[in-house]
Parts: sequence; C-alpha cells; structure tokens
Amino acid sequence: MRILVVNPNTTASMTEKIGAAARSVAAPGTEIIAVNPAHGPESIEGYYDEVFSVPGLLEEIAKGEAGGVDGHILACFDDTGLDAARTAATAPVVGICEAALHTAALVAGSFSIVTTLARSVPALESLVQKYGMARQCRRVRASEVPVLALEDPDSDARAEIRAEIARAVEEDRAEAIVLGCAGMADLTRDLSAEFGLPVIDGVVAAVKLVEGLAALGLKTSKVGGYAAPLPKTYAGDFARFSPKT
Amino acid sequence: MRILVVNPNTTASMTEKIGAAARSVAAPGTEIIAVNPAHGPESIEGYYDEVFSVPGLLEEIAKGEAGGVDGHILACFDDTGLDAARTAATAPVVGICEAALHTAALVAGSFSIVTTLARSVPALESLVQKYGMARQCRRVRASEVPVLALEDPDSDARAEIRAEIARAVEEDRAEAIVLGCAGMADLTRDLSAEFGLPVIDGVVAAVKLVEGLAALGLKTSKVGGYAAPLPKTYAGDFARFSPKT
Amino acid sequence: MRILVVNPNTTASMTEKIGAAARSVAAPGTEIIAVNPAHGPESIEGYYDEVFSVPGLLEEIAKGEAGGVDGHILACFDDTGLDAARTAATAPVVGICEAALHTAALVAGSFSIVTTLARSVPALESLVQKYGMARQCRRVRASEVPVLALEDPDSDARAEIRAEIARAVEEDRAEAIVLGCAGMADLTRDLSAEFGLPVIDGVVAAVKLVEGLAALGLKTSKVGGYAAPLPKTYAGDFARFSPKT
Amino acid sequence: MRILVVNPNTTASMTEKIGAAARSVAAPGTEIIAVNPAHGPESIEGYYDEVFSVPGLLEEIAKGEAGGVDGHILACFDDTGLDAARTAATAPVVGICEAALHTAALVAGSFSIVTTLARSVPALESLVQKYGMARQCRRVRASEVPVLALEDPDSDARAEIRAEIARAVEEDRAEAIVLGCAGMADLTRDLSAEFGLPVIDGVVAAVKLVEGLAALGLKTSKVGGYAAPLPKTYAGDFARFSPKT
Amino acid sequence: MRILVVNPNTTASMTEKIGAAARSVAAPGTEIIAVNPAHGPESIEGYYDEVFSVPGLLEEIAKGEAGGVDGHILACFDDTGLDAARTAATAPVVGICEAALHTAALVAGSFSIVTTLARSVPALESLVQKYGMARQCRRVRASEVPVLALEDPDSDARAEIRAEIARAVEEDRAEAIVLGCAGMADLTRDLSAEFGLPVIDGVVAAVKLVEGLAALGLKTSKVGGYAAPLPKTYAGDFARFSPKT
Amino acid sequence: MRILVVNPNTTASMTEKIGAAARSVAAPGTEIIAVNPAHGPESIEGYYDEVFSVPGLLEEIAKGEAGGVDGHILACFDDTGLDAARTAATAPVVGICEAALHTAALVAGSFSIVTTLARSVPALESLVQKYGMARQCRRVRASEVPVLALEDPDSDARAEIRAEIARAVEEDRAEAIVLGCAGMADLTRDLSAEFGLPVIDGVVAAVKLVEGLAALGLKTSKVGGYAAPLPKTYAGDFARFSPKT
Repeated sequence: MRILVVNPNTTASMTEKIGAAARSVAAPGTEIIAVNPAHGPESIEGYYDEVFSVPGLLEEIAKGEAGGVDGHILACFDDTGLDAARTAATAPVVGICEAALHTAALVAGSFSIVTTLARSVPALESLVQKYGMARQCRRVRASEVPVLALEDPDSDARAEIRAEIARAVEEDRAEAIVLGCAGMADLTRDLSAEFGLPVIDGVVAAVKLVEGLAALGLKTSKVGGYAAPLPKTYAGDFARFSPKT
Repeated sequence: MRILVVNPNTTASMTEKIGAAARSVAAPGTEIIAVNPAHGPESIEGYYDEVFSVPGLLEEIAKGEAGGVDGHILACFDDTGLDAARTAATAPVVGICEAALHTAALVAGSFSIVTTLARSVPALESLVQKYGMARQCRRVRASEVPVLALEDPDSDARAEIRAEIARAVEEDRAEAIVLGCAGMADLTRDLSAEFGLPVIDGVVAAVKLVEGLAALGLKTSKVGGYAAPLPKTYAGDFARFSPKT
Repeated sequence: MRILVVNPNTTASMTEKIGAAARSVAAPGTEIIAVNPAHGPESIEGYYDEVFSVPGLLEEIAKGEAGGVDGHILACFDDTGLDAARTAATAPVVGICEAALHTAALVAGSFSIVTTLARSVPALESLVQKYGMARQCRRVRASEVPVLALEDPDSDARAEIRAEIARAVEEDRAEAIVLGCAGMADLTRDLSAEFGLPVIDGVVAAVKLVEGLAALGLKTSKVGGYAAPLPKTYAGDFARFSPKT
Repeated sequence: MRILVVNPNTTASMTEKIGAAARSVAAPGTEIIAVNPAHGPESIEGYYDEVFSVPGLLEEIAKGEAGGVDGHILACFDDTGLDAARTAATAPVVGICEAALHTAALVAGSFSIVTTLARSVPALESLVQKYGMARQCRRVRASEVPVLALEDPDSDARAEIRAEIARAVEEDRAEAIVLGCAGMADLTRDLSAEFGLPVIDGVVAAVKLVEGLAALGLKTSKVGGYAAPLPKTYAGDFARFSPKT
Repeated sequence: MRILVVNPNTTASMTEKIGAAARSVAAPGTEIIAVNPAHGPESIEGYYDEVFSVPGLLEEIAKGEAGGVDGHILACFDDTGLDAARTAATAPVVGICEAALHTAALVAGSFSIVTTLARSVPALESLVQKYGMARQCRRVRASEVPVLALEDPDSDARAEIRAEIARAVEEDRAEAIVLGCAGMADLTRDLSAEFGLPVIDGVVAAVKLVEGLAALGLKTSKVGGYAAPLPKTYAGDFARFSPKT
Repeated sequence: MRILVVNPNTTASMTEKIGAAARSVAAPGTEIIAVNPAHGPESIEGYYDEVFSVPGLLEEIAKGEAGGVDGHILACFDDTGLDAARTAATAPVVGICEAALHTAALVAGSFSIVTTLARSVPALESLVQKYGMARQCRRVRASEVPVLALEDPDSDARAEIRAEIARAVEEDRAEAIVLGCAGMADLTRDLSAEFGLPVIDGVVAAVKLVEGLAALGLKTSKVGGYAAPLPKTYAGDFARFSPKT
C-alpha cells in the first residue's frame, strides 16, 4: 500500500519530519511518500497562508492519483483544502485534524486541543464544530509557539506546550490532549507518559485511518459535494488545473 | 464611498451583470468597482473550483485596499475566501451568502435557499451551520441549473428556479427565499411579487451591508482569527503574495 | 427615507439621546423620527418591565405605519415586542440587539456582550440562542450599571463598563464587543480605539440595516408567523388595539 | 392547596372549559381558581394577540399572589408572559406548553405537536428550542382549526385534528402527541385510545406539575432573570403596574 | 396510588433513606414501596457499576408491574436502566436525574448539578445533553464525596457539598442547584435556605412527577423505542428474564 | 496483534459470521478472536435486550484483558456496554456503530443509517447525537428485517434492505450508507457497487480502527469517566464481577 502524505507548506525539513513520523507507525507493507508543494507558504499560520497552500497541495494530490496511491493525508492541522482534495481524488483523503479528533473520540470522553498560535484558534474551533466534536472538545488552546520554532532545538517551545497541556488537564478536565500542529508528532509518547492520559498527534492518527480505509476498499463518495470537478476552463496562472472530462 | 465587488470567477459578462446589480441599489454617493481575477475558473461549482478562485480574488482585494476602498464584497455564493480576505483587508469584507442569510433573518422567521447544482448544496449547508442559521434555514435546494446557463436567454433556467421556489414554499413552509447564486440578482423583484414573500439576492444585500459598516466606521477585528498575515516567504508561483511586515 | 426609532421606555431624555445617535449615522436623505410611548416603564430592566413597554411601542409602530415610514427600529436591547411589531408593520422592523449581533458577525469571528444588569443576562442569552449566535457569542456580561445611571454624568458607569470590556477581551478572547444597552451609543468610538477592536452599538447598527432593507424594497414576510393579526375583539383597556380586517 | 389558572384570553366560556379540565385532574385537596383578564384579546392567535394578553394576565397573577395561592398556571399554549409572571410571583408558575413538553418527554422518546393555526407554528418552534426539546419534538403541525372553532360543536374541528394526528404518527414517527391549544383538554383520552399512544394536554399536565412543585415547597428562583422587578415608575395607562419596593 | 421506588444499588440503609425521603413528600393516598435488588453493586459510581445494577432493577420493576403499581422511580442519579425499564413497564417510569432536571427547568432559568465523584460527571453530562438541558445546565460539578460517605455522620461530606454549591453560585451564575445523588434528599431545605435559591433533589421531584403522570392516566408510549421486548430466549444466567409473548 | 471481537448476543452462528467478516479485513499479523457470552439474549433488538447482554460481554472483555489482547470490538450496532467496557479495559475498545459513523465521516459529507427494526431507531438516534454526528447523519431508517432473518437465506431480508437504501439515496440525499446491524458485513461490496456510493459495515470498520489504535499505542484514558471501577462488593449473582483494587 502506498500513502501520499502532503505537507502543505514548503518547508522541506518539516516534510521530512512529518514523513518520518508517518513511517514510524506505518504497517509493514505501507510505503509513505512525503511531499510538499513547490509553491506556497513556508508555514501555515492562519487563513491567509491556507489559501496559498492549496493549489500546490492539489497538484501533489493529482500526482499521487496519477501514480496510483491508495490514500492521501493532508498534513496541516487546519485540514486545508480537504474538501477540494476529496473532489480531486478517488483514493480516500484524510486531514490530520479530523484524524486526531476521530481518534481522540475513540479513547476518551473529552479532549482539549493545544495548538501553536492564537490566530489559528478560530479556524480550529470552526473545524471542531464542522466535525461534530463541539461536545467532546473542551477547548482549543494556543501555546503561542510559532510553527517553525518547533523545529528549533534552542527554543523553549516544548516547555510552553507542556505548560498549556497542564492547564488543559486542570482547567478543562480534558480526558485526552490533541496536539494541534503537524510538527509535534515526536512529542506524544513522552507527554502521554508525563501526563498520564492519551496525547494524540494527527499525522500518525491519519496514517492508521488511511491504511484502514484503503484496506476496506472504501473510496470517497462521488455522490453530492465530493463529485469530480466539472470540466471547464481556468484562466491565466491556473489554466493547468482546469478540470478535464 | 467606494466599494469593491469581486466576482471570484473569470467570466467578465457575469462581473458586469453583478456590477450592474450592485449599482442598481447603491446609495447616491457609492461607487461600485466590479472586478474579477485574471486567473482562475470561469465559474465556481463546487469545492475544487473554489480553491483556484481565491488567489486571484485576494489579489483584487489587495488592489482595492491599496486604492483605499471603503469595503469589499465577495460575489460568489460559497463565500469563497471570505476568512482569508478578512485577514488581508482593513476595510470590512462581506460575502454574498452571509449577506443574504443575515438579511433574510431580519424579514422572515425562516427561509430556504435555492441554488444551482446539487454538488454545491453541502458547501452551503456548511455555511448555514457556520453562520448559526441552521434553525432559520429550512433547506438548501438545488434547481440543477448550471451557473453559466443563467447567462443564456434560451435556457429554461428561470422556469426551473421558479419550480424549486414553489416547492420550498409548499414543502418547507419557508417564509422567505434566498437565491443561492450570484447571477440571479435581476430575478428577485419579479419572484417576490409572484410568490408573495421576500426573495433575497446576496449581491444587493451585501451592498447595503457594506455601505452600512463603512458608514459606521466599523472595520474587521484584527484581534484573533483575522489578524494580519504574519510576514513570511511564499515559494514559487505565489512569491508575490508573501505577506510583508 | 423616514425611519421610526421607538425607544420603548418612557424616559424622554433617553429617546433624545437615542435619536441623536441614530441621526449621527443616518444617510443624507434619511429622516429619523425618535419617539417613545406615553404609557409604560421609565426603563426596561428585566422581563416584567418588558411587558408594559410593548403596547405603547405597538401604538407608535401603528402611527408610523399610518404615516408611511420606510422602516422601524426597536431601541431596547431586549428586542422587546419585535415579533409582534413585525405582524403589525408592512415596513421592515429591526431590533437593536439583533442589529448589533448580525453586525458583529460581519466584522469579527466572535464577540461578547456587555450589558447593564445581571437580571437582564438570561433574556439576552435567550436572544443569542434564538438568533443562532451561540457559537459566535462568547459570553453575556453584566457591568451592574443601572440603565438610568448611564444618563448621570456623575456616576462611574463608564469606568465599570470599561472594566467589564477588559475582562471580556482577556477572559473570553472576544474579537469584538457588543454594548448591550440603548444608552451607550456615544461610547463606541472611544472604546473601540481604547481596546483596539470593534465595539458595536445596536442603535446605529440598526439604522444602517433598516436603511438597507428599505432601499432594497424588502418587507417583512407575511407568510407564516408574521402574518397580519386576525381581526377580533379586544376587551377593556385594549379595545383600541383590536385588529381590524 | 389553591392553584390559580389564568386563561390569558378574555373568552369566559373557554376559561370555564379550562377550569373544568383542571378540576378533573386536581388532587382532592386542590382548589382550582380559573380566571381570565378583563382586558385583552378574545383569543390568542399569533404574536400580536400575545402582547395584549399579558398585562391582564399579570394583573391576575398579582391578585393570586395577594390571595396567597400556592401556584399559577398560564393556560395559553404560547406560554405567553411566562418569564414576566415568574418575576412577579413567589409561588411557582408553569406554562401549559412547557408542562406538556416536559410531561411528554417522560412517557415517550419523541413527540409531535398539533396546534391550531399555521401562524402559531413559528412561536411554538421557538418555545421548543428554548425548552431544549428540539431533538424530542419531531414537528410542530397546524390543523388550521381556529381557536374559537374548538368551542363550536358544529365545526369539523375534531375531525381535522384527528387527521393531523394521523399524519404525525405516520410521517413523523412520533411516539406521543402534544395537543397545542388550551381548548383541547377533553379530547385526550379518546384520542389516546384511538391512536394507541399518549396524547397530552397542557392544562392537565400543568395542574399536576404545579401541585408537585408546591408540595415540594419549591419556589421560582429569585437569583438572576426572575428577580423581582426593580421599583420604578410606569407612565400613563400602566401606572398601576409600577413595581413597588 | 402505589409507587415503586427502586434503589438500584444493594445498600439497604440507602434504600431506607430514599424511601423515607419519598414518603416525606408523597400525597396522602400514595403508598411508597422502596426496594433494592438482591443482586448488584453496593453503590453506583461510574459506568461499570451501572451495568450490574440494571438486571436486578428490572427484576424489581417486573415485580412491581405484576403487583399492579401505578408508577416506578429509578433512584440512581445516572438514570441507570431507564430506557430498558420503560420497555418492561406499562406504568410510567421516571429517573431521578430527569426528574430533577425537568423540575429545575420549571423554577429557574439555569442550574448547576453538584454530584459526588468526578468519574460520574461525563455520564451526567451525557444525560444533560440527551434530555435537552445543555443550555439550562451551566455545569456538572463533583464534590469528590464518595456515595457511601453521605451515610457516614462523621465524614465532612456535607461541608464539601456546600463548598461546591457556593462555587456553582459564584462561578456558574446558576439560578438553582440540582443535587446529583440519591442520598442527598434531606439536605435540600437547609441548603435552599442557606443559599437563597432552589436546591432540588431528584427523589422527591420524581415522586411528584410520577404521582402526576399516574393521576393523568398517562403510560409510557409503546410505539417505537419503548415497545415491549420481543419474545425470545435468553441463555444461561439470564434465562429467567427472557421476554414472553 | 490480537483483537477480541465480542458479539454481545448468544447466537453462535452470528458470532462466526462476524468473526469471518472481521478476519476478511484483518491485517496479516492480526489474530481475530470472536466470542459471544454464555449468558444473555439470542439477539439484541431494543433497550431491554441490551441490558442482559452487557454482563456477559464484560466477562468476555475481562477474559480478553487477562489474555493480553491488544484491543476489543463490541459487535452490536447499539454499542451496548461501550462506556462500561472502557472502564474495564486497558486496551482500546471500539463499538461498531461508532466505528461505522467515524468511518463514514471520512469518505462522505453525509450518510443515512439503515438498520433492522423501527424499535431500534431511537437508540441509534441517541448514539448519533452522542457521537456528534447529527449534522452528517441524515436519517436512521428501519427496513423492518428482524436480526435473525439476516441469517435465513430464504427470507427476503436483502431485498428489503436494498429498497430502504434506495429510499435513503433518493429522499435523504445521503452520500453514503451505514448498515446498522452486525450481520450485514458481507453485503457491503455488492451494495456499494449497485448504488455507486460507499456502503459501510461497522464490524470491518472497527477492525481497522482498533488495529490503528493498538499500533499507535493508544489506550483508553483513565482520567475521568473511564477510570477503573472503584473496588467494592457486588451482591448475589454478580459477586464475581466485584471490582478489585
């Protein structure tokens, strides 16, 4: 089985880190193909960055489809471009936020999300509502750690994340913690041991969900909102994305 | 007062039609600047088309901001790119779906939306939920009229829309009708008279809302989700969109 | 265009203040007619006061309709009598709470309401739910300033309101503030500058919404809940209000 | 124990009918005092009629309080004036809509409401939401029987109500039926037998709830929204209602 | 009238206490039959204990039905086995959590629940949602008093419960308090006086609700989810529970 | 990896069928141990049957835990005993209803559930709400096929299920179908091909979810509602289930 993991930002070191996280949990027969777009933002921190990550992301999805992958993972916690990717793929597509939330709901009665920046909180609150997790999700919290600081060994990013988890356990009475960023995968086992409850990362959760969907032969429904794009002409820079029959 | 109306698709005839609709209700001192992106889909019918309309749309918003407009209208009923546009603008930004829904809620206790294609229904249902209108909105209905058919005088598009409105009145007990497409502005007065209830178009609704916000000196909040994009580097095709300090 | 602004309490100085606020934002061609009932409470602070403000309010609405006004504003933040006023009017009717909430939703992802007395909070929470704003509205807060103290220059009303706004920004992470009282209109620009986010007053918001509805030729739906009252006999003191054919 | 049952309309024959219904289920020691206001509409059919029934209703509540009754019932299915009555009473106050809904929730997993006129449906839908019964209540249905026709033995009111119940059972899969009008109390046993499921009338349900609350010594909370009205001056016709210290 | 009160745990001293509480509010003609199962947990503290209380509980319900009781009360605040008991009974069945919640909603605009252990909170939050009380219920709070400690005069259980109520009043702005445990009935009048708001116990609330339902001749609907169990064979230990035709 | 699949009813032929379905999708290294309790109902059709399946189910879970399995599946679509099983297990526990719903949400924007008997619909509607899937789940439909009829090759069970699916596609505009019964696993591929959309079975969905959770090292949270049962004495028949320290 081959799974495409698209890091929607253009920071290759983060793609590698995400790819390594994905491979660390992949089943024996699963090949993880971790890529990032050539075009777009170096990190995704808010609604504006999201926009410019999606065309490149869809380009990678299209390549994956052409190459016959068995499933796709969108490795940005905003689940950027998820609905569009589903219209463009026949293989299943899973976002890491939805992966983390569905997974958390299976091992805990409630959870809080700890993400990076306050500016990302409203978008995540919107996703929580969209996915029907408003009751289970106690609160979306920001540790005010910039995405790329997670890459920097000299930052105190981890200390700040741990402080925010401690507050979620104390104040929100959360039964589990969801780490709301693609760069946090390697922290989960330590944090889980430290806090004595499940700490969930979306990338590894998504790998197992996509492996499962693919094994079951399930594909995205093409009835309704995820129907294939209608053939039409795109003008200018986006001409090459024009949907064909 | 100058209001920028961005038709996010690249069909100039539709931009003209939208601009004319906007001008037909603009206050004496309001100048309507109707534009469309140079890049992107000729019509927006589903999640995939949405993606490729937003970069061009944001380019137009940026030009409008640079030119000092007093407000922006996004003239696609999916409210494509609305959150991102708000991060990029200081003037207020209103989408035509939210404009129509908020307006409908002021003149009726309930309403149904009549849009073009079934594939657009789930995206609109998501917006209805996001805007808090799930109780007021009885149902989102598709008349199965393609967007560009509304431009074609020989199509039976209008007959099909009227049939769907009749069903909304009868089956949904809707007290008002929202027309869920940017190309339907000129139909509202006739349909309203025919069916004896408010029939609401998002473009004209948005013009009055933006005029109002601008007159009140209200600007989009920059605290939280709509904070200005953080300065960073965008790679490749999108380099020119990189947020500056 | 002529807009009737009904202050549902009988304190003329507050009517003047509300009228002045409305005029300060009215479009050039808009005439604001600010009135209050002859009968009823001097201020509206809770469910009981609400009841006795509505007959007088409807009397003013009826006069306005007879005089051919283009729209009505109910200038009490409880939106007292709004549904009834809609059955009695052909011109659109907007309450200042709903005006403020819909306006806030266009410029911010979330907001908190700061009102006067704790006893008014449950009624506002009910309105928030009725209008579908439960997700956007973080919290309804009371500053414990009595309505008429807002009229008194020697009270420390403004200091208390500012303290409550500061708490809303800090504790609720609100992106905007709605002032939950008709007597606070003149505070908004200063508070908005002080706190660096939109501070919204319902009276001025309502003026722009009614101007917009009237300009669009939209009238309250008479299909369903807002149908004109059925003709019947009212006994005793209310005989003069009996609906006629 | 003495319970005041206020029919908020001024039709004495309906008051008698309601009083008889209440007495038919009252416990041995319970005295039912059925009254109606001297002032106001002869029947309540929509938001406008509601307004003019409440001052008279509160006058009756005040008399009841002065006379030391143990509880109050508001016998209009719109629960007109319920919140205000609670601020004015120390004894518990129950509306017949809420009584019917809470009772239905104890004997069935879901129910539909069958009321008189379509114009009353939106108000009842609002109550259903306010009381938290949106999941349990499948649908609010109108049989298009005017309130006073229920008084007329020659009308086919009952046949129409039965037809609507049949539709609720078939189409809504309702497990119980709530009769949404104060004049339907005598129909419930027959209809219950005919349709083989609970058919619930609000008046008799309210009698048992108020008897229970009074027996438990429970009174309306005076902390928050139902605090006693603040002393102040009411102008004109309503001077006699001015709250005293 | 005879009402069966089933304490679903096997601690006879608690059954006596519950029975005494029930009798203290029962109407003159009401006989309270307080029982507990012979089989099952000595107290119910969480989901696991719940399971083993229900077979015995249903055995008591069946005996009650055979003996012709007029109604049943399930006296565990988790409303353990309520849906199953309704399928097995013709007389009405009321749980003490739902009884307390419906009763609270009639005398206050909002309330908080104070229960014993934190582990019970998620189950109660689920019930709150199921019963539609999510808006009215501000918070479910645990005082961390074990169930059986309420039986022990030397414990400081009552002091801890009072401290938690004080927090609910202060932090949650609750207008009433629901005591979330079957052993707290004798505390309500004192606490209600101390805190100046309604403090509600589920056992006594349920007695009055069941008396009311029985007096009205209302029985659980047998259409839909509460239909009598289909006849079939139960294997092993549970053979004696096999539903018969 | 070893996964325990508990069929909570006592019909061994169904256990075999469920085991075979589970094995058909298990990963190479996964051993499926399919069991059913010795005690309890032969099929689970409604709330009453549920009760008597759970003690035996928990006995099987306990054996599985003692044997060191890596995860548990509860193979009844009512997710009977799920919360209790989680308190009793350290390995993750997944119900087949939640498995099917979370899986459906990853491949379709909406779905309908087709189950066996109308009496089971309310319980499933409750689960849909509990899991936060009320928006995604269009409707829970009953085909009126008894559970054991699915075992009978001569019944017309499959024809009736297909007819109900057809109605879900047409009337509910569902984008996917969830089969709401543990005995339908072998139908999914054919039905999916016939109807051109994902048809999802809970048993196979649960296998892949549990494999995923186990691979990630995720265990049920023991903080809050799923904490291990407190040690205490169970009386009578259930003494052997008494939780130990």
